Amino acid sequence: MDIEKLYINMGGEIKRFEKFGGKLEEGYEFFYKKRVAEVDVQLFGLISGDFSPIHFDENVALQTRFKGRVVHGMLTTSLISAALARLPGLVVILETYFVYIAPVRIGDEVEIKGVIQEADSEKNRYKINIDCFVNEKKVVEGWVKVLIW
Amino acid sequence: MDIEKLYINMGGEIKRFEKFGGKLEEGYEFFYKKRVAEVDVQLFGLISGDFSPIHFDENVALQTRFKGRVVHGMLTTSLISAALARLPGLVVILETYFVYIAPVRIGDEVEIKGVIQEADSEKNRYKINIDCFVNEKKVVEGWVKVLIW
Repeated sequence: MDIEKLYINMGGEIKRFEKFGGKLEEGYEFFYKKRVAEVDVQLFGLISGDFSPIHFDENVALQTRFKGRVVHGMLTTSLISAALARLPGLVVILETYFVYIAPVRIGDEVEIKGVIQEADSEKNRYKINIDCFVNEKKVVEGWVKVLIW
Repeated sequence: MDIEKLYINMGGEIKRFEKFGGKLEEGYEFFYKKRVAEVDVQLFGLISGDFSPIHFDENVALQTRFKGRVVHGMLTTSLISAALARLPGLVVILETYFVYIAPVRIGDEVEIKGVIQEADSEKNRYKINIDCFVNEKKVVEGWVKVLIW
């Protein structure tokens, strides 16, 4: 697949799609991490249409409180989609709430930690607490509600 | 830029980065739309690592209530990032809340509508109501809080 080769050649990290094991219940924890590369910021710009200078123009970004370019917040939280997709079953996201606490830099490895907070196994609905870290510093926190088929 | 040419050749829609005008105050409305193409789903898979069969395997997806492949929910909401980036000033997303109401299909044009609900022009903080539509059917609703430099 050409696009995958191009992605690797441009420095993107390929994550094989693997499923987590175990039984979904309160307290179930899962982890997922991925490095956010320059190519990810470029592609997220194309996909979304968000070419804000905060993500693309170092000169403009240097003059802000961020003191340099940062990764799109919603690119960081897109990794949560991948973490959830690895849960047993077919996962449908119903609702999300995220707080963006600190900037993520190009090249940072983002680690997602999820913990099931509420499990309704009859309706197959779960509320999951989410934290995102870079080098153990929390950059995003929040929760999601999912339906699992 | 090679990656942009490749994106166009693969059927992606390029949105030029333009800023909205006007004064940010309660009731300020803005709109943004983009077609979500096959290439967007492929690239969102690579960027995030979310290769769920719901997005990539028509045979599996046909057997679900969706009756076919759907776009990643967080790919749809990534267009909100682009809409917000077009507001006057440099926009930093602080907080997001979204409800995913209905599936989006590959090829659908998603329209974002934003309305400022609360404007604190001293602290440059705004709460913005967000709706996403496909052919006037609401697919996502929620709100964001942003800081504008």
